[in-house]
Amino acid sequence: MKIDILTLFPEMFRGVMESSIMKKAQENQAFTYQTIDFRQYTTNKHQKVDDYPYGGGAGMVLMPQPIFSAVDAIKQSESKPPRIVLMCPQGERFTQRKAEELAKEDHLIFICGHYEGYDERIREQLVTDEISIGDFVLTGGELGAMVVIDSVVRLLPSALGNQQSAREDSFSTGLLEHPHYTRPAVFQGMEVPEILRSGHHEKIEKWRKQQSLKRTLERRPDLLEDYPLTDEEKKWLDR
Amino acid sequence: MKIDILTLFPEMFRGVMESSIMKKAQENQAFTYQTIDFRQYTTNKHQKVDDYPYGGGAGMVLMPQPIFSAVDAIKQSESKPPRIVLMCPQGERFTQRKAEELAKEDHLIFICGHYEGYDERIREQLVTDEISIGDFVLTGGELGAMVVIDSVVRLLPSALGNQQSAREDSFSTGLLEHPHYTRPAVFQGMEVPEILRSGHHEKIEKWRKQQSLKRTLERRPDLLEDYPLTDEEKKWLDR
Repeated sequence: MKIDILTLFPEMFRGVMESSIMKKAQENQAFTYQTIDFRQYTTNKHQKVDDYPYGGGAGMVLMPQPIFSAVDAIKQSESKPPRIVLMCPQGERFTQRKAEELAKEDHLIFICGHYEGYDERIREQLVTDEISIGDFVLTGGELGAMVVIDSVVRLLPSALGNQQSAREDSFSTGLLEHPHYTRPAVFQGMEVPEILRSGHHEKIEKWRKQQSLKRTLERRPDLLEDYPLTDEEKKWLDR
Repeated sequence: MKIDILTLFPEMFRGVMESSIMKKAQENQAFTYQTIDFRQYTTNKHQKVDDYPYGGGAGMVLMPQPIFSAVDAIKQSESKPPRIVLMCPQGERFTQRKAEELAKEDHLIFICGHYEGYDERIREQLVTDEISIGDFVLTGGELGAMVVIDSVVRLLPSALGNQQSAREDSFSTGLLEHPHYTRPAVFQGMEVPEILRSGHHEKIEKWRKQQSLKRTLERRPDLLEDYPLTDEEKKWLDR
């Protein structure tokens, strides 16, 4: 996979893109990335990327020209058209399903604004996806792009060593995870539940499933709407 | 505000924490931060931070001792207890309201796991808040912590210059933003709507409000549930 990131703050990306799984995935040739400062693509004398909004109002708006030109330059030699993702608060809410969808692509382009709004023509004529990572206000699209990239890269077949993949499957049960405990058995007076130390695998599995359902019910009951409960599980929940 | 970040990957943070608003907010003395590699606080010979889960299963679990010890060291000389935030998929969904709540604190501590689960005793006895930024799987809690920190720091009174604050208020109307347009009036055959160039402020305001409602209805109808519609706005929506 090839990832291009259009941003006025390329220096924000290196620490995240060159650590941990992202670093390993590049070593494993799962993906390559570059950051592109779209100010380089301005055609005006002062390398301006934004201007006042038509119709008045506070704030500045990113002009279409630099962003269209930067994307044109990237796309030049492509057979399959890339997915062009605009990070913005008005976008579709990012989910694991979207990550899985994007992980099938060969080429992703991310457009990150910073403080400013986007000229509507970017939205209408250039991008294929508008994505928001949640209902909170961030300084720019950069952190959102990193979040999307991290979750997508993890899904690329060659990105991860085998040692992680098992663990990650646990997220896809549709429920929140059960509690985990490790050494020591007693820490500052707090004990690991006896059942986990019993060696009785069947009971442990049942306890974990019950805890997982309990936690989901308490914290994210919305997740249970899509979850196919067995009769036994329904009984547990009723209690 | 003082921010401490417990992480095994401190190198991920610098690019984000030292750019743009985060940089400016530190120059304005709105906050200070440090990253703490909690591996330093292990008391075992091999500086191990995780171990196998009690009860068996795939994956490793972060041990309580290094994290408890690191937090103890940070808390040593405090009068008001800090908020201790665990970044995890099982946490409360992060929202702007939560950002506003955290922005009132003097001291935030973030605990970032990476691949592994957390020993339940960390969750039960140490942390004050468990936060998730959304229903997607990330490599670790680091990006989530950066997202939370960025949204909180922006709200600190001395963080931003005045030039940005007006723009940001536009997010708090409870609706998605209306379309923005800037120069040129025609770009690659695409025109700015005539009304925005009319200079008729009242009509412009009405158009923007209608567009904002339309976009919210199309993309995020859930937001309209909490929005107090006027009679005129109800009529627009019915159409």
